[in-house]
Amino acid sequence: MLHHAPDTPGALQGEARAVDLGHSRIDVDRRARTGDPEVVFGSGKTPEQVVEILRTLHAAHPDTAVLATRLSPEALDHVAAELADADVDRVARTAVLGALPAPRGLVRVVAAGTSDGPVAAEAAVTIRVHGAGVERVDDVGVAGIHRLMAVADRLADADCLVVVAGMEGALPSVVAGLVGVPLVGVPTSVGYGTGAGGLAAVLSMLNSCAPGVVVVNVDNGYGAGVHAARVARAAAPREAGPVVTGRGEASP
Amino acid sequence: MLHHAPDTPGALQGEARAVDLGHSRIDVDRRARTGDPEVVFGSGKTPEQVVEILRTLHAAHPDTAVLATRLSPEALDHVAAELADADVDRVARTAVLGALPAPRGLVRVVAAGTSDGPVAAEAAVTIRVHGAGVERVDDVGVAGIHRLMAVADRLADADCLVVVAGMEGALPSVVAGLVGVPLVGVPTSVGYGTGAGGLAAVLSMLNSCAPGVVVVNVDNGYGAGVHAARVARAAAPREAGPVVTGRGEASP
Amino acid sequence: MLHHAPDTPGALQGEARAVDLGHSRIDVDRRARTGDPEVVFGSGKTPEQVVEILRTLHAAHPDTAVLATRLSPEALDHVAAELADADVDRVARTAVLGALPAPRGLVRVVAAGTSDGPVAAEAAVTIRVHGAGVERVDDVGVAGIHRLMAVADRLADADCLVVVAGMEGALPSVVAGLVGVPLVGVPTSVGYGTGAGGLAAVLSMLNSCAPGVVVVNVDNGYGAGVHAARVARAAAPREAGPVVTGRGEASP
Amino acid sequence: MLHHAPDTPGALQGEARAVDLGHSRIDVDRRARTGDPEVVFGSGKTPEQVVEILRTLHAAHPDTAVLATRLSPEALDHVAAELADADVDRVARTAVLGALPAPRGLVRVVAAGTSDGPVAAEAAVTIRVHGAGVERVDDVGVAGIHRLMAVADRLADADCLVVVAGMEGALPSVVAGLVGVPLVGVPTSVGYGTGAGGLAAVLSMLNSCAPGVVVVNVDNGYGAGVHAARVARAAAPREAGPVVTGRGEASP
Amino acid sequence: MLHHAPDTPGALQGEARAVDLGHSRIDVDRRARTGDPEVVFGSGKTPEQVVEILRTLHAAHPDTAVLATRLSPEALDHVAAELADADVDRVARTAVLGALPAPRGLVRVVAAGTSDGPVAAEAAVTIRVHGAGVERVDDVGVAGIHRLMAVADRLADADCLVVVAGMEGALPSVVAGLVGVPLVGVPTSVGYGTGAGGLAAVLSMLNSCAPGVVVVNVDNGYGAGVHAARVARAAAPREAGPVVTGRGEASP
Amino acid sequence: MLHHAPDTPGALQGEARAVDLGHSRIDVDRRARTGDPEVVFGSGKTPEQVVEILRTLHAAHPDTAVLATRLSPEALDHVAAELADADVDRVARTAVLGALPAPRGLVRVVAAGTSDGPVAAEAAVTIRVHGAGVERVDDVGVAGIHRLMAVADRLADADCLVVVAGMEGALPSVVAGLVGVPLVGVPTSVGYGTGAGGLAAVLSMLNSCAPGVVVVNVDNGYGAGVHAARVARAAAPREAGPVVTGRGEASP
Amino acid sequence: MLHHAPDTPGALQGEARAVDLGHSRIDVDRRARTGDPEVVFGSGKTPEQVVEILRTLHAAHPDTAVLATRLSPEALDHVAAELADADVDRVARTAVLGALPAPRGLVRVVAAGTSDGPVAAEAAVTIRVHGAGVERVDDVGVAGIHRLMAVADRLADADCLVVVAGMEGALPSVVAGLVGVPLVGVPTSVGYGTGAGGLAAVLSMLNSCAPGVVVVNVDNGYGAGVHAARVARAAAPREAGPVVTGRGEASP
Amino acid sequence: MLHHAPDTPGALQGEARAVDLGHSRIDVDRRARTGDPEVVFGSGKTPEQVVEILRTLHAAHPDTAVLATRLSPEALDHVAAELADADVDRVARTAVLGALPAPRGLVRVVAAGTSDGPVAAEAAVTIRVHGAGVERVDDVGVAGIHRLMAVADRLADADCLVVVAGMEGALPSVVAGLVGVPLVGVPTSVGYGTGAGGLAAVLSMLNSCAPGVVVVNVDNGYGAGVHAARVARAAAPREAGPVVTGRGEASP
Repeated sequence: MLHHAPDTPGALQGEARAVDLGHSRIDVDRRARTGDPEVVFGSGKTPEQVVEILRTLHAAHPDTAVLATRLSPEALDHVAAELADADVDRVARTAVLGALPAPRGLVRVVAAGTSDGPVAAEAAVTIRVHGAGVERVDDVGVAGIHRLMAVADRLADADCLVVVAGMEGALPSVVAGLVGVPLVGVPTSVGYGTGAGGLAAVLSMLNSCAPGVVVVNVDNGYGAGVHAARVARAAAPREAGPVVTGRGEASP
Repeated sequence: MLHHAPDTPGALQGEARAVDLGHSRIDVDRRARTGDPEVVFGSGKTPEQVVEILRTLHAAHPDTAVLATRLSPEALDHVAAELADADVDRVARTAVLGALPAPRGLVRVVAAGTSDGPVAAEAAVTIRVHGAGVERVDDVGVAGIHRLMAVADRLADADCLVVVAGMEGALPSVVAGLVGVPLVGVPTSVGYGTGAGGLAAVLSMLNSCAPGVVVVNVDNGYGAGVHAARVARAAAPREAGPVVTGRGEASP
Repeated sequence: MLHHAPDTPGALQGEARAVDLGHSRIDVDRRARTGDPEVVFGSGKTPEQVVEILRTLHAAHPDTAVLATRLSPEALDHVAAELADADVDRVARTAVLGALPAPRGLVRVVAAGTSDGPVAAEAAVTIRVHGAGVERVDDVGVAGIHRLMAVADRLADADCLVVVAGMEGALPSVVAGLVGVPLVGVPTSVGYGTGAGGLAAVLSMLNSCAPGVVVVNVDNGYGAGVHAARVARAAAPREAGPVVTGRGEASP
Repeated sequence: MLHHAPDTPGALQGEARAVDLGHSRIDVDRRARTGDPEVVFGSGKTPEQVVEILRTLHAAHPDTAVLATRLSPEALDHVAAELADADVDRVARTAVLGALPAPRGLVRVVAAGTSDGPVAAEAAVTIRVHGAGVERVDDVGVAGIHRLMAVADRLADADCLVVVAGMEGALPSVVAGLVGVPLVGVPTSVGYGTGAGGLAAVLSMLNSCAPGVVVVNVDNGYGAGVHAARVARAAAPREAGPVVTGRGEASP
Repeated sequence: MLHHAPDTPGALQGEARAVDLGHSRIDVDRRARTGDPEVVFGSGKTPEQVVEILRTLHAAHPDTAVLATRLSPEALDHVAAELADADVDRVARTAVLGALPAPRGLVRVVAAGTSDGPVAAEAAVTIRVHGAGVERVDDVGVAGIHRLMAVADRLADADCLVVVAGMEGALPSVVAGLVGVPLVGVPTSVGYGTGAGGLAAVLSMLNSCAPGVVVVNVDNGYGAGVHAARVARAAAPREAGPVVTGRGEASP
Repeated sequence: MLHHAPDTPGALQGEARAVDLGHSRIDVDRRARTGDPEVVFGSGKTPEQVVEILRTLHAAHPDTAVLATRLSPEALDHVAAELADADVDRVARTAVLGALPAPRGLVRVVAAGTSDGPVAAEAAVTIRVHGAGVERVDDVGVAGIHRLMAVADRLADADCLVVVAGMEGALPSVVAGLVGVPLVGVPTSVGYGTGAGGLAAVLSMLNSCAPGVVVVNVDNGYGAGVHAARVARAAAPREAGPVVTGRGEASP
Repeated sequence: MLHHAPDTPGALQGEARAVDLGHSRIDVDRRARTGDPEVVFGSGKTPEQVVEILRTLHAAHPDTAVLATRLSPEALDHVAAELADADVDRVARTAVLGALPAPRGLVRVVAAGTSDGPVAAEAAVTIRVHGAGVERVDDVGVAGIHRLMAVADRLADADCLVVVAGMEGALPSVVAGLVGVPLVGVPTSVGYGTGAGGLAAVLSMLNSCAPGVVVVNVDNGYGAGVHAARVARAAAPREAGPVVTGRGEASP
Repeated sequence: MLHHAPDTPGALQGEARAVDLGHSRIDVDRRARTGDPEVVFGSGKTPEQVVEILRTLHAAHPDTAVLATRLSPEALDHVAAELADADVDRVARTAVLGALPAPRGLVRVVAAGTSDGPVAAEAAVTIRVHGAGVERVDDVGVAGIHRLMAVADRLADADCLVVVAGMEGALPSVVAGLVGVPLVGVPTSVGYGTGAGGLAAVLSMLNSCAPGVVVVNVDNGYGAGVHAARVARAAAPREAGPVVTGRGEASP
């Protein structure tokens, strides 16, 4: 006969330090290797699975936040209903369970347009969960360059920048020409026709004429956030003043 | 904690002259910079948001029309129900609120086939809202070249041409060989197989053997309309006779 | 037997008003149809052919300039040696024979970087030959946005803009956000890796977040120039002051 | 040891009726299967190999013409020097050895521009060698549509049309809208930027809005000629008058 | 105000001989130009529109069949209910109204697999409506080459072949190597992964190593049928015996 | 009239040894040619058709298993309800009817992540049905390389490896560097943005720096399984100990 | 100062068991890990470097052959002059130094056309060096299917097949439909236009309708050979009769 | 007349603080804006131009190094001959003029294979010129994963990693799974067939399954170096011990 008994004893497993939930195997050793928190990629998982994985990871790491990304509306609802302590962000499509680490360094997340907001929000949440402070600068797309120039000095006053843009994805080039801060470009899938799927934006950022622009996959706010938080944490820690997080909110 | 308080005082904003509706920040200074009217890109916005933005823009600019494009059927219904003065075009998927400016110059919008109609209509509405007169010439695709030849003299009698075509997108080349009027090609996503998404049409127009053809993104009737209206307005103003607009209607 | 007797009497010819040089058939009626001067696309032609075609066109149109583009270094040399009256531009790879028309209107050709110079030069020469005035604005790429802001008011003071950029091709978006002048973007093949051949630049310009950007094929300074000259000529003619042409030179 | 003795006795061979020249295996049975003459694809072959293969094929088929295509300038020279009876066409890059068959039916080869000439010539030679009559119609690109309209009635008076065009490749669509004759589109690699390699032209022809356009690979004048000759031969044979071939020459 | 009055008197129309139904303009002169019947491309049209157009075309051409393709299931139902005389084919997604012309010549439609059936059926119906006889040969994909070899002699006994294949699209190459009959390849969108949308099949057919294969767009059974019927009609008419049509049915 | 009578007597059929079910023709001779079992590709077939084909194939081959792949949830339900003896796997989307052959040789199916599970499961089922033993090794993606190193010796102890990965598809390269066992890479469509559809994974595997990696189409677990089973069966048969199958289950 | 001292003591090195020649680091442990011989990828290396690396590898492994692939004509000359014992193959562009292993199992390398010969030859040499017997079957492209059918029984009599084809790459599908032997498809870069670089062939093979076709990168005869040799060696060893190698030559 | 007087007085210039050399305009204010040194992109410049620009930049910034990249062999020779103090690296294709800054922080440049060496070298030189320490780790490609595991602890002991790989570009994923250090992936153009130009590598890195991988354009060692140096400099400065630079050399 031909059966599929998931993870019966004796089956080959890549590593001992994993928790098996039947539907998913949870690697609980990642933090030890990389220093980063545990993260659930929610795409394709049921609301019940997301809740169960968050609970499991939180139990394994009670002292720090765990993060779920790319949650469906149903999963966001289910997390909010089942996990009262979770911080659910419906724009970012994320949920956070457990205490946020104290912020070290500051990342500014710069977004071109309103439609880029969900990706910027995913980056911002990721940055905070990964231990850096975060502040957002929205609606500064290159088609209204005065808006960007008005905040140029604050762009320079960060340990890392995450710059989010769809359509032609030109914003990282302009920002990188203004300041020498480490900068990650995040192309978004905002666009249509020849730009559908973010192709124009990702090519634009890879071919930036401004030196030092590095890029992640389309809509990958999470990946940009991980890199930026690592960079900011390693820079000299900030003074004790309130670190602004989220979309402009001051963290006490 | 991790919150997202949109646009609380003290948050970084790119520019002071914007109105924040929570879901969107409305740039009300664009007209001052470019002379163009305010426009709402409706894709991805709820019917309620569209109505609210149109109202806000109209209040800020009571003396001129504001335009919403790419509206869903639901948004078109909601605008029609809530804004009695709005001019809703279900083919163009647009809504206009406020008095149209007097037309200066004339743009002819030439379309290859019936399926290209919505894009041509979006261009036509955009042109009128941006201050030029407009007239449409439909169903003159290259597979029946006699139809085009029959109207050739009227093509020459315009200040700018917008030429809309899907499939192989050959119409702009033929028209540009007939007349020396400034001409914008608009590829549409009408097609299938290797032409799906408008790829064949946009490549065709970019590689036109006729000199002077300029191109916009697939289905971007709005962008073509903005350029054409600017060109026509700058040309010598027309005489006082009735300017034909829309699909052949005479504007009083 | 199987011979190829080019253009023997009785062979089908598309049109009577053409001059046959054996290697090429010269259409001498284009001007009547479109009002534009005659142009030779020099790519793939021998130096001798280029000279012969220029002479033929000049003889047919002694009252106005004829233009040759995309000339090889050898063709440029041969034209300079054989046609003493020709104006040869080695950067633009062009040659002009015959008196330039009086300039009507003004086009500014804006270029991002030094490497984009040849394409900008081809556009500038084309514009002058097609009857408009031209002025160049160089080295204002988006990676040094202050350079662009310093000349913003002069950008607004033109009848049409041609904006040339390679790499990520972001410059047209920024310029189009600053001014409402009709604007043609010209992507160049300056780039490497994922941007080789100008793909990133042309996608960037087609997907511009700034309304009204129209685009031509990669490196097609000639096509952009034809469109821009038509637009500028149709706008209200300039006053009698000196019109700046070329790279900043004042035409008497 | 490891040797490569080509075609030693006892080696596996796909078919007995082939002649092995060491460098190439010549299939001499193709004519029996398909009724078409033997053809050498010259690309990548040395001048000496081309001559040897032509001699071998001619010896095997002394009663009919054999054809070599895609010959280098050196191969064309060598064939002309070694095979006095060969008909060498330097534009088409072909050589023909042996008597041409009597022409049955008529194919017209229509070309958009001068640069498309070599591909049109390859098609024309192929058609004659494959037994149909041929006549060329040159320089009727869509940017000067009057030239095409002037010959429209002669387009209808053919058994098959081969329509050759580079750049945006629009000519087959226009021709197919004029007449109901079977029509093969041949995209050429004439183009640059986004059209480099013929991509725009081949997509254009595959997506023609005119029904019945069929397409071959870029620059494949030979393939189009094979199909067209088969179609024309099967149609009712022409009267005994002189059949025009090549570029307008009358075959006795 | 801004209205869109479709086709009011005085509006520009490409040609007088068209019937306007509001939603569509029906070109009723195509038959005069090309000799082909009138055809409705049903994609994107409502069931009511399809019925109305068929009725209009049938009234204009009562003596011959008119064809509708790419009909939705709803449109097929509506045609069957409203037009009792229509011949509706749910696999081919077509409807035919009016008497079929007497068949001249014979086209064989060869299909690789069961999934290619709808495209083969569309080609077969198109061929009959366009005046040629048709016979289908199914399930002879190259992965079971013996099936194809078993019918090889019947492939040679046709005036034209239409060869339909998805996945790697190899069937036209094999068939074209067996017989010298004019052959049209039709790639289908049957496939997944790197072959999704028919890309592998269309490239395969364009690059066939067998001479004379011509190709249409993905899933374009209609286009292949138009070309094939023209070819077959022009060949010598068949004897008076019953001509097999459809999937093997003998037409009386 | 125009009918489509499927498979009436006298219609051309590629081969006598096929069973026609109206909707599908079942080739029952494949096993004789290739030694492989009969397989139904379920995509696009109705639940009823799948059941009928499985019954027909099972009746024709009562002594061995027949396989259905790519079944919809509805088809899986219908098979489970109608064919009590069928072994239905909802993750693999497969159904097996008939006795599995005795396993010869061993294939290990190695998967990078949880999301690659369905493709790995399809491969595993296919392998068993095609006569080889199978064992799975899950969750050993390259981002946690220690998990892979922990099972390296077991990778070497197989007759063939099937390595399944989405996203960047790097796993086959790493595994192929560890062991000299024949290895088939299976890219999956797990990914987004520039990796959507599996493009990054398939390119990665085709360009592996480790020698000997061979690749199948995206998500083609079935194709990889067929090849791997053939390789494993031909290798020296295993000893009589229990052969592990499925996801770690021991087959008696 | 900034120097680059390659491989000075103390520099980080990935592994102790490597020999450093300054220009290259030679991994001499690969054989221990995978059982395969050492191979030099000659592309980009000077003739002198190739000779030095071959000598070094031969000294480290005196008991078995080492292989160099992708050698330039100059490198082939230099190897022939400097290494008298090397077996140089100018078609395959390979050199072999050291005694070939006794052949186990048999791989047949099947090639579609003459132009595919170099890739087939590289595969054949690789197979012999990797310990399997090899025999070539040439000129059996699908456009002359009778040639392939004539050798079908010999295709079935192999332990593995390597099938090499350019253009549309259809040969593996046909072969895989004939026999159940493990089969590796090798697309070649033979082609032009839309097939340039082998794109059509590699897509064709990945999308084969015949089950079990696995594929390597374009022109990667070496990779296919490594896989095929592993498969053949693991199958039951052949009898003691002469094993045919190369292009049909019998190895003593 | 039509002249091009480059940079005559009165011409529009983007910015006052530039030095014009006729062939190039040198922006000498970049350092003030971004803190980075001046860099010459040598591609397309003559040897004489490179020398002149280096001299000009060095004169403007005598206290710090200036860098030239992408130098041709002729330019490298000319710089070495004319600028005795320049540090010329023929592998990296760079030249450095002026004193290197004291290194702050440490970047390790990890390369997969020998062919990736030039890109890794360009990154290493860039990093040192931009003020960080650098150490290279070579020949640790994923096909010999033991080599990478042997140096894993040293990878963790860096402030930033630059990971260079061609072919399938898998190395960044594996490294990012081992350590939590900020990591920049650099795809190289090493590859052929479907990987030509670095497409497979850049897609692989953008789609990495390991979080936090950021990417630059193909072969852009310079861009990666700029980002990495900024990251490393901002991290806590290293102790006074010798910082290893270049390919393992200790800087005093």
